[in-house]
Amino acid sequence: MPKVRVAGFSVSLDGFSAGIEQSLNDPLGKRGTEIFQWFFHTNTFRSMHGQQGGTIGGVDDQFAHSAMDNFGAFILGRNMFGPVRGPWPDDLWKGWWGPNPPYHTPTFVLTHHKREPLEMEGGTTFYFVTGGIVEALDLAKKAAGSKDIKIGGGVSTVRQYLQAGLIDSLHLASVPVLLGQGESLLQGLDLHALGFSITDRKSSDYATHLVLEKA
Amino acid sequence: MPKVRVAGFSVSLDGFSAGIEQSLNDPLGKRGTEIFQWFFHTNTFRSMHGQQGGTIGGVDDQFAHSAMDNFGAFILGRNMFGPVRGPWPDDLWKGWWGPNPPYHTPTFVLTHHKREPLEMEGGTTFYFVTGGIVEALDLAKKAAGSKDIKIGGGVSTVRQYLQAGLIDSLHLASVPVLLGQGESLLQGLDLHALGFSITDRKSSDYATHLVLEKA
Repeated sequence: MPKVRVAGFSVSLDGFSAGIEQSLNDPLGKRGTEIFQWFFHTNTFRSMHGQQGGTIGGVDDQFAHSAMDNFGAFILGRNMFGPVRGPWPDDLWKGWWGPNPPYHTPTFVLTHHKREPLEMEGGTTFYFVTGGIVEALDLAKKAAGSKDIKIGGGVSTVRQYLQAGLIDSLHLASVPVLLGQGESLLQGLDLHALGFSITDRKSSDYATHLVLEKA
Repeated sequence: MPKVRVAGFSVSLDGFSAGIEQSLNDPLGKRGTEIFQWFFHTNTFRSMHGQQGGTIGGVDDQFAHSAMDNFGAFILGRNMFGPVRGPWPDDLWKGWWGPNPPYHTPTFVLTHHKREPLEMEGGTTFYFVTGGIVEALDLAKKAAGSKDIKIGGGVSTVRQYLQAGLIDSLHLASVPVLLGQGESLLQGLDLHALGFSITDRKSSDYATHLVLEKA
């Protein structure tokens, strides 16, 4: 049975999954990169960007690999796709990731503004969905077939899907960083009442990885 | 130089350090005991309660030991001292801990209502302070001499001292538990702006222990 998953999502000790003031220069918000140190050193991350090396097979790389594995479709919030706000002025913005994005499947972008699908290299096609999170999930499920669907982010998108009870599994990387300010992942959400419990936990030098699943 | 410390303070994955609905039967609030599993199995905890056995010398016991070591005075919020609210009806309530509390030093209880000092067995004397957190800290510093002062809790008391910039060091035990609801330790506090950074981190099967200190 395919699952709707959040994976590879970092959370600071003070509960933030992105910094403040996201911009073209700071896609993860100010100091946002500090919460992804566990990911950057892995072979999985480097391979995604056409680089060699990195740590192979340790705790971080295992979770990094599974955070990108077995997905048949992705869903992204518009801020995760880019810094453009309001109606699309043109088709120039094609995501943060260059001509060959790391998704390699149909990828659904939540937006209030229509735009034609955008076919990229490597199998990624961005579809722009104006009908809301349930419509996007229906489209993603059809596209994914027997594979899982990943809610890729950002924070607001993950929170909306959690609150709607539409997520089956989360992998969070709890990192020893104090962001101080940012976008809180769990504030005001009751994951216990939503049926989640913690089913796996492993620590590395960089993060404590936790898997949360519905009972 | 003596330090003002918080130590052995548990935080759930969703940021809570106590459950809801604290009462005589639930001193830590509903499900509050779940966040202290890392502590209960240690030799330090058992010794505090006159029991033998427990884990000696592992990561949890090391942090448990240092969370009770080298203190010359404690400060407790009134809810940490007991479930009685409003003016003290009599002197019958003497804390949650029986005749020999685990403090063994002068221990200052924040309250709005006057009460005579209460001398217990084993060196603990409870002093009831009506002048606020700064007065309590001044009294505790005088009592502690060259030793540290521990802000023992509860959550609201720790938050007040943090916000006032009066805490030098925190040891938090981040535990794989989803309380769902409770008293949030850090929500709305900017520990980065307050000057804290994470200086130590060690994981056990029960918790990831983190030490936060002012630079």
